Amino acid sequence: MLKVKALLFDVFGTVVDWRTGIAREVENLANNNGISLNPFDFADAWRAEYQPSMDEIRKGNRPFTILDILHKENLKKISPKFNLSNLSEEDLNKLVTAWHRLPGWPDSTEGINALKKKYILATQSNGNIALIVNMAKFSNLNWDVVLGAEVIGHYKPEPNAYLKACSALNLKTEECLMVAAHDDDLKAASLQGMKTAYVHRPFEYGKDKLFDIAEVNDYKGNRKWDIISKDLNHLAKKLGC
Amino acid sequence: MLKVKALLFDVFGTVVDWRTGIAREVENLANNNGISLNPFDFADAWRAEYQPSMDEIRKGNRPFTILDILHKENLKKISPKFNLSNLSEEDLNKLVTAWHRLPGWPDSTEGINALKKKYILATQSNGNIALIVNMAKFSNLNWDVVLGAEVIGHYKPEPNAYLKACSALNLKTEECLMVAAHDDDLKAASLQGMKTAYVHRPFEYGKDKLFDIAEVNDYKGNRKWDIISKDLNHLAKKLGC
Repeated sequence: MLKVKALLFDVFGTVVDWRTGIAREVENLANNNGISLNPFDFADAWRAEYQPSMDEIRKGNRPFTILDILHKENLKKISPKFNLSNLSEEDLNKLVTAWHRLPGWPDSTEGINALKKKYILATQSNGNIALIVNMAKFSNLNWDVVLGAEVIGHYKPEPNAYLKACSALNLKTEECLMVAAHDDDLKAASLQGMKTAYVHRPFEYGKDKLFDIAEVNDYKGNRKWDIISKDLNHLAKKLGC
Repeated sequence: MLKVKALLFDVFGTVVDWRTGIAREVENLANNNGISLNPFDFADAWRAEYQPSMDEIRKGNRPFTILDILHKENLKKISPKFNLSNLSEEDLNKLVTAWHRLPGWPDSTEGINALKKKYILATQSNGNIALIVNMAKFSNLNWDVVLGAEVIGHYKPEPNAYLKACSALNLKTEECLMVAAHDDDLKAASLQGMKTAYVHRPFEYGKDKLFDIAEVNDYKGNRKWDIISKDLNHLAKKLGC
């Protein structure tokens, strides 16, 4: 059994289903405005701008800027392609806060509540504080503390994003377990000495995007992380909760 | 009924009984080391160094420094007076983290759980992140988000301590309710446009320190805050929870 004191969670994809959430909200908005679009293509296009928009900040070319602002800039960039150029400022802002109302995966609330009894549970997301707090209230995700980009001042996978989050909890990196559905996040955390738990989320990009069904069935793949789990309930079980 | 979305809590004195908690831990430590001291005098002396130690930071004469470090400096300052000069570094550090293990007032857990169903609950304390998180786990205080000094970078009652906390939640100051047992904290919050709730904690400085018993019986006094409450359960009731 790992001797960790805190679990630090990636959120988008690992705890919440951003693709379904964004698609649902843009579909409603499109219907109300008589606009025709493919909501899942829209969600994928918006998400595709996510990493590039943080890169200028990671490189130090731009001061730290919260994700709500990056999301709005990215939305304006992709709007023409989805017939959304004429949306009111109010509708644009409402769509930006769709990221504050993402649904958890079916196991998320239960898994978090089980893990919370034994460990400190922190978010370690690139989402800003308001986004993570509003999402937690909306989707019943009982975090102990919101860490991540806005609190720490660095976007993952910068080393400081992980180092300063552990330090804020007054813990050594090896006392902290990074929980994520993404190997790159886990790799970056492990390079700083954190323990790692993989959570399998095969449908993050939709059921029709499964190009490698063998990988989905064999969720362990070639992964060497400290814990490999199928969902947050499975993770709780593996951690003795 | 106030139309607020988030409650921001002062913690020391308002939610937890720091004097009893510190006295209890120093008494154990003294007994184990054969040291004679008055544990409540020690708690009062340590707390008396609290505000002065933040002043240099508030004035900008010293970079932002977390409370755990200030507590340790202040402890070393008062140690000789209480025969604690020869404590080991390990015992000193353990005593510093006594602030992470303060007990809630009898109503705190229940009141917070009731309020949490309707509002975002944030700590807005001068305590650092690890201190507030550890205390929350130890005393079962179910916060939604830890704000306050280390996250915001300013010590109360600096205006920015309040302004930036509301801003981190993406809320206007008038959408946030400052909850505190201290009139100076509420005054500083109200000057920034926050709504205010007073919580009566007559025994913060001990039952023998009640120099004005009339004030204790009439907890409303001359107070003009938006809400005047006897404890957190009473506050929850007044807010319709």
